[in-house]
Amino acid sequence: MARSYRQKSCPVARTLDIIGERWTILLLRDLFLQGARRFQDFQESLAGVAPNTLSARLKAMEEHGLISRRVYSDHPPRLEYHLTDKGKSLGPVLKALREWGQRHA
Amino acid sequence: MARSYRQKSCPVARTLDIIGERWTILLLRDLFLQGARRFQDFQESLAGVAPNTLSARLKAMEEHGLISRRVYSDHPPRLEYHLTDKGKSLGPVLKALREWGQRHA
Repeated sequence: MARSYRQKSCPVARTLDIIGERWTILLLRDLFLQGARRFQDFQESLAGVAPNTLSARLKAMEEHGLISRRVYSDHPPRLEYHLTDKGKSLGPVLKALREWGQRHA
Repeated sequence: MARSYRQKSCPVARTLDIIGERWTILLLRDLFLQGARRFQDFQESLAGVAPNTLSARLKAMEEHGLISRRVYSDHPPRLEYHLTDKGKSLGPVLKALREWGQRHA
């Protein structure tokens, strides 16, 4: 399970409790850039992420309502992930991270 | 040492290589809200951070030019940390995280 900072009165800490675990923001990035993504798409994009870590991150993001799953093939069954409206509302966070990296990193 | 996502062509990943480790963004938050801070101020604010983790985060932030140290007492020697201009340029990132938390978390 994700670790909490246990600072529920701070909105920055509350946001990080949801998106602050390693890899989560890069998963959001891929979904913003590419639209729907399959599990193996994330594995290819994020060299170094362990499959069980990737599963845990996607599960937590779904539980927080940031992404949802869609079946796009029944035989064999195949899933893809996409951002919900709540997930898309993180756009300004991604934008701020991108702009800082372009200027300073 | 901080782990890198090794995605140097992505400005989001480059930013996270600098501020994405656990606790770093909350240290920045404290410095934005409070101005200069001592080591023990951070320990009190961030219940749960281990002293060696706190030391490592502050050292990395100093190496990346986000904060600098200032001696404010010689006898006994005492240090405080404050944001540099580069550190202050992360204001939009903190603002986006805060606003999302206020609305959605």
